[in-house]
Amino acid sequence: MTVKLGIIGTGRIAHAHAAGVSNSPDAELVAVNDLVADVAEAFAAKYGCRADDVEGIAADPDITGVLICTPTPTHSVLIEKFAKAGKHVFCEKPVDLDIEKAKEVVAAAENAGVKLMLGFNRRFDPSFLAVRAAIDDGTVGDVELVLITSRDPEPPPVAYARVSGGLFRDMTIHDLDMARFLLGEDPVVVSAHGSALVSPDIAEFGDIDTASVILETASGKQAVITNSRRATYGYDQRVEVHGSRGVVYAENQHEPGAVIGNENGYTKTPLQNFFMDRYIPAYTNEIKAFVKCIADDTEPPATGADGVIALRIADACFESLHTGKRVRI
Amino acid sequence: MTVKLGIIGTGRIAHAHAAGVSNSPDAELVAVNDLVADVAEAFAAKYGCRADDVEGIAADPDITGVLICTPTPTHSVLIEKFAKAGKHVFCEKPVDLDIEKAKEVVAAAENAGVKLMLGFNRRFDPSFLAVRAAIDDGTVGDVELVLITSRDPEPPPVAYARVSGGLFRDMTIHDLDMARFLLGEDPVVVSAHGSALVSPDIAEFGDIDTASVILETASGKQAVITNSRRATYGYDQRVEVHGSRGVVYAENQHEPGAVIGNENGYTKTPLQNFFMDRYIPAYTNEIKAFVKCIADDTEPPATGADGVIALRIADACFESLHTGKRVRI
Amino acid sequence: MTVKLGIIGTGRIAHAHAAGVSNSPDAELVAVNDLVADVAEAFAAKYGCRADDVEGIAADPDITGVLICTPTPTHSVLIEKFAKAGKHVFCEKPVDLDIEKAKEVVAAAENAGVKLMLGFNRRFDPSFLAVRAAIDDGTVGDVELVLITSRDPEPPPVAYARVSGGLFRDMTIHDLDMARFLLGEDPVVVSAHGSALVSPDIAEFGDIDTASVILETASGKQAVITNSRRATYGYDQRVEVHGSRGVVYAENQHEPGAVIGNENGYTKTPLQNFFMDRYIPAYTNEIKAFVKCIADDTEPPATGADGVIALRIADACFESLHTGKRVRI
Amino acid sequence: MTVKLGIIGTGRIAHAHAAGVSNSPDAELVAVNDLVADVAEAFAAKYGCRADDVEGIAADPDITGVLICTPTPTHSVLIEKFAKAGKHVFCEKPVDLDIEKAKEVVAAAENAGVKLMLGFNRRFDPSFLAVRAAIDDGTVGDVELVLITSRDPEPPPVAYARVSGGLFRDMTIHDLDMARFLLGEDPVVVSAHGSALVSPDIAEFGDIDTASVILETASGKQAVITNSRRATYGYDQRVEVHGSRGVVYAENQHEPGAVIGNENGYTKTPLQNFFMDRYIPAYTNEIKAFVKCIADDTEPPATGADGVIALRIADACFESLHTGKRVRI
Repeated sequence: MTVKLGIIGTGRIAHAHAAGVSNSPDAELVAVNDLVADVAEAFAAKYGCRADDVEGIAADPDITGVLICTPTPTHSVLIEKFAKAGKHVFCEKPVDLDIEKAKEVVAAAENAGVKLMLGFNRRFDPSFLAVRAAIDDGTVGDVELVLITSRDPEPPPVAYARVSGGLFRDMTIHDLDMARFLLGEDPVVVSAHGSALVSPDIAEFGDIDTASVILETASGKQAVITNSRRATYGYDQRVEVHGSRGVVYAENQHEPGAVIGNENGYTKTPLQNFFMDRYIPAYTNEIKAFVKCIADDTEPPATGADGVIALRIADACFESLHTGKRVRI
Repeated sequence: MTVKLGIIGTGRIAHAHAAGVSNSPDAELVAVNDLVADVAEAFAAKYGCRADDVEGIAADPDITGVLICTPTPTHSVLIEKFAKAGKHVFCEKPVDLDIEKAKEVVAAAENAGVKLMLGFNRRFDPSFLAVRAAIDDGTVGDVELVLITSRDPEPPPVAYARVSGGLFRDMTIHDLDMARFLLGEDPVVVSAHGSALVSPDIAEFGDIDTASVILETASGKQAVITNSRRATYGYDQRVEVHGSRGVVYAENQHEPGAVIGNENGYTKTPLQNFFMDRYIPAYTNEIKAFVKCIADDTEPPATGADGVIALRIADACFESLHTGKRVRI
Repeated sequence: MTVKLGIIGTGRIAHAHAAGVSNSPDAELVAVNDLVADVAEAFAAKYGCRADDVEGIAADPDITGVLICTPTPTHSVLIEKFAKAGKHVFCEKPVDLDIEKAKEVVAAAENAGVKLMLGFNRRFDPSFLAVRAAIDDGTVGDVELVLITSRDPEPPPVAYARVSGGLFRDMTIHDLDMARFLLGEDPVVVSAHGSALVSPDIAEFGDIDTASVILETASGKQAVITNSRRATYGYDQRVEVHGSRGVVYAENQHEPGAVIGNENGYTKTPLQNFFMDRYIPAYTNEIKAFVKCIADDTEPPATGADGVIALRIADACFESLHTGKRVRI
Repeated sequence: MTVKLGIIGTGRIAHAHAAGVSNSPDAELVAVNDLVADVAEAFAAKYGCRADDVEGIAADPDITGVLICTPTPTHSVLIEKFAKAGKHVFCEKPVDLDIEKAKEVVAAAENAGVKLMLGFNRRFDPSFLAVRAAIDDGTVGDVELVLITSRDPEPPPVAYARVSGGLFRDMTIHDLDMARFLLGEDPVVVSAHGSALVSPDIAEFGDIDTASVILETASGKQAVITNSRRATYGYDQRVEVHGSRGVVYAENQHEPGAVIGNENGYTKTPLQNFFMDRYIPAYTNEIKAFVKCIADDTEPPATGADGVIALRIADACFESLHTGKRVRI
C-alpha cells in the first residue's frame, strides 16, 4: 500500500523531502501547500502533485501523513491542525521554541492518536548510524565519552539569529539530540560556556556563536559539544564515541575532488559546504523512516517527545551560560 | 529548449541514465524501447515516458537524441539506424568489438551529421575531472607518469567473458581511454602482460583476469595500468598523475560508515562495491554533457573516434600479450 | 662551549634525557646520581659519565645544569639544593603538588639567579609545535576553540593514583599547559566534570579517570579537554585549534606498519602505545632547548612559573568537580 | 658475547650504521678506516673507536665483521680482502656493477666461509616488513599484483649518474629486490620503458630518469615498478600487494607537522625528504640483523646472491629498454 503524503512549505528542505519521497517506493507526494500560489504551483508541477490549501490537505481522506517544512513559528499550529485531522505528522525541528507549548503540541498529537516525527536528520546519516550500530552491537563496549563537533561554515543573518531562540535552541539542539542518541542515557547536568566571537553584534540580544558544552549522565558518562558559527573549511560535522572496548567515529565529508601534492604538502578539498550537501542521504533516509513507521504502525525513530527533551537541555545550556552555574536538568 | 530523448534498453545502466535525464533541467525522456514489452511498459511508467518500438522512436520528429543501453552486439546496427534518422546518439562503449566495423559506424554518424558520444563514464567522475583540471591548469606541470588502478570486486560469468572480446577490450578499455584523457598525448607503443589467476578456466579461450600494461607516448610520457577481476576490498578505482611540478591523484571511495579503533587497529569501511555505486555522479554528469553538446551544438566530450582509438590500443595490448612483444600502435 | 650536565634519577625518563643529551652537540652528561649505587654505576657506564652523590654533583664547578628525574616528592628539595649551588635546573613536572610550596621553590630558583625549566614535554613535540606555528604566523587567524584529547592506554596502579594528586594534577596538567600554550591567553574560568568509570575503586579517595574540562579566557576563547585513563587503541594525543581563518590540528601517531584491506574494510595499526614511544622527538627537543637556554642565557621555553599556573588551574578543576560549580581562577 | 665490528668509509651512511651499532646491545664498533686520516680520527672520536688502516682492521683478531660504506668501485676488492681475512662482511649495494665480477666476489665470500650481507635497507623498513608479514601469514592470500612506487626528490649530479651504471642498476635495483622480496618467486620476464624527462642531458650516455617496469613470474604473478628522479612532494616510497584474499600496502611517510584546513582545503606536510630521513629505522634494523646473523650463525636476510640476482634483472631491464623487446631472465 502506498503512503500518500502532503507537504507544507516549498523551501530548500521541502525540495529535499520531495526528493526523499520520490526515492521511497512505498510513498507518493500528492499535494503541496505554500502561502504563495505561484510557488506552490511550480513545486506541484515539478513533483507531479497538486497545489492545495492547508484545509484541503487536512480534509483529503487519501492523505495519511504530512511533512511540515515551514518556518518555526508556524510549527505548533500546523501540527495541531493536522493531528486533529488524523494525519501523521513529520515536522522540522523544533516543535516550538517555548517548551510548555511544545509539550502541549506533543500531547495533542498523542491524544489524536497520530505519529509525530521530528526532523532530527542527523540520526539518519549513514555514518552516524554506523557509530550508533557500533555502540548497539557492543563493539565499543560501555560508552564513556562522546565528542560532538558541529560548526557551520558561516553565521546566519542577524535578523534570523534574533528570532532563532539563540544558538543552543537553534543549532546546538541537533547536537544535544545526537548526544542523547549516542549516550543511550539522558544527561542530568550540564555546563555551558559561550561567547560572540564571530558576530559581536549578536551579544546585544544575548546570543553567542561559539560554544562549549559538557553533558553528564547519572552514571558518569560525559558528552562534549563544541559549536561555531564560522568554519572557513566547510561544514564541520564529527561525532566520536569512546567506550571501554574501543572508539568509533564518523569522519568529516569532503567535497569531491583530487589530492594535490607538491613542495607545500598534500592538499585535499575542503568539507562539503553545508547541510544540503552533507545530509542528502540523511534526508532521504529520514523520509523513508517516516513512511515506514506509518506503514508498519511503529514508533517514529525521532519523536516529538525527543524534541521536547532536547529543548529542555537547550534551555538548561542557556541557563548555565547566563548564570555561570552548572545546571541540573 | 528542452532536448527530448529516447532510450533503448532497460537494464541497470538505462535506469542510471533515465535518472540522469531527470536531473538534467533541459532534457526530457519521452520514449523507451525494450525487446520485452512488459519491461518497457514498466520502465515507461516509472519514468513518465511512452514505450515504443525502435522505428517509432527513430521516426519521432520531437526526439533529437537517443541513449543506447543495449548489449554490445547491437550497438553498431542501432547507431547506424538512428544516425540515418538524424538522431544524435549516446551509446555505451564499445561501438563494436571489431575495429573496422567500429570505424565504419563512426564514419556513418559523421556522414549523417549527427553527434556520436560514447559512454566513457569515468571522464565525468568528479574526482577524475579534478585530476584532469590540475593538469590543464598547470598545477602538476608536465605530465610524466600516469598510474591507473582498476580492479573489479569479482569476475563476470564465464559466459559473459567468452563473448566480451577479452579483458583488454572489455575492461581495460576504460583505463586506456582514461590514460589518453590524462596523458594529453596518444600512446605510440605498448607492453602488456597478463595471466588468468582468478578464473583459470578462461585461459581456455585465451582470456586473462590479471593484467599490467605500460603505454608510452612519443615524448616519453608513460602510463601504467593494473587490472584485476577480483578485489575482496571492493571496486578499486584510482588514478594518479605525476608531473614535473607535483602529483595529483583521486582517492578510492569507501562505503559510508564509521571508523572503529581498538587493540587491533583502526578500521574503516571497504570500497564502494561496484560501478553503479561508485560512478553515480559520473553517469549523471555524462548525460548532462550529452544534452549540453546537443543544445550548444558542440563536440561531445567523448566521441566515437575516442572509442575507436581506445579499441585500437586494446587490440595492441592483446597482440603484445600473445606475441610477447612490445607493440607499436 | 659544551654545557656539562648532571642527572638525578635513573628511571625510563632519565634514559630518554640521557639520549637527548647525546643528541645535543653542545652538551655532555658528566655525572649521574641514584639512591641505589649499582643502578647509578650501570647508568654511568652506559652513558660514559661518573656516578656521584647529590652533594658531589652540586659541588662540581664544571657542571652548569642538572636534570631532575626523580619521583615528585623529591622535586622541591632537589631544585632548592641545586639552585642554591648555582646550577640551572631542568625538572620533570610538577615542581610540587602543593601550590604554595611550588611558588616557594620557583622563587628560590629566581633568587638564586638560575634557570628553572619544567618538563612540559608536549610543548616540544614537532606536530604540536607546528600547530603553535600556524597560530603564531596568523594562518588560523584568531584562536576561538581549542580541543585537546588525551587518553592513556591504561590506568596507573591504584597505589600510584593514591599519591598522584588526582587526575587533574597528575595527567590533565599536561593538557592544561598545552591549552595555555595554544590559547595564547590564560583561562579565567573553568568547568570540570569527571567520573571513575575505568577503576571505580579510586572513587574511594576522591579520584576520577574520565574527565571533561572547559576553560574560558577573558576574551571568550574556549578550550575543551577530554581525558580517559583507558584507550584500547593506544595513546590518544590530539590537539586542534579552530580560528577565525581556519583550523589546524595534530593527528594521532600510529605504530609503524601496513594497511590491510579486505571484505571487512581497511585496517591500519593502533596508536603508538605510550609516551615513551609517542614523545621521543619531544624529549630530545626538550633537552636541546634546556641546553640552548643555558648556552644563550635566555628564558626557558617552559618555566617553573608555567608549572605553578598549570597547577593552579588543576586545583580549580578539582574544586569545580567537587563543588559542582564553575570556578574562577 | 659482543660482536666487534670495523667500518670502512665515513660518509652519511657510515654515520647511520655507526648509530645502528650503538643501538645494537650485542655489538660494538672498534675501528674505522677512511682514506683521509683527519676524517677517520673525527669519526673515531665521535663513536669511541680507533682509526686504523684497512690492513690493521683485517688483521685484528677481535674484529669479527666489517661494514663497507665506501663508493661502489671499491666494494669488490674490499669484500675479497676482508673475506680472505675471515671477517663477515656487510656491504652497501651493489657488490659490483659488472655481474661477472659480482658473482666472483660472492663466490669468494662463500669459499672463505664468511657471511656476505648486502645493504638492501628497504627489506628492514618496519612498514615493508609488515607488508611482507601479511603475505607470509596468509592475510592477503596468493600474491597476484605487486606495485612499487619509488621516486627520488631530485636527480643526482650528472657526474654521479654517468658512473652509476644507469637508473636500473643504481636506483631501480632496490625496487627489483623489493619485488622479489614480495613476490616470493623470481621474475622470469621483464618489460621496461624509460625516458629522460627530468635531465635530458643524461640521454647522451644512454641513461633515463623516468621508468616503468613490469616483471612477471612463471606462475603469472606481476610486479609493476615506476621510478622518477624528481618528486616535488618528497621521497615517494610505496609498496602495495594485491592478493586473492585482500590488499596490503605501506603508506608514504610525511614530515612531522600539522594539518591546516581553510577555504583552500586541508593540507598536510610533504613526504620525508630522502632516504636518510625515511629509512632511519630500516638502517638500524639492518645492522641489528647483521649482528644477529653473526651471533646466531645464520644466513643473512639479504645476501650477496640476492644482489647478483637483482643486478641480473636490472641488466634485463636495460636490455629491454634498449632493444624495445620483452626480455627473459
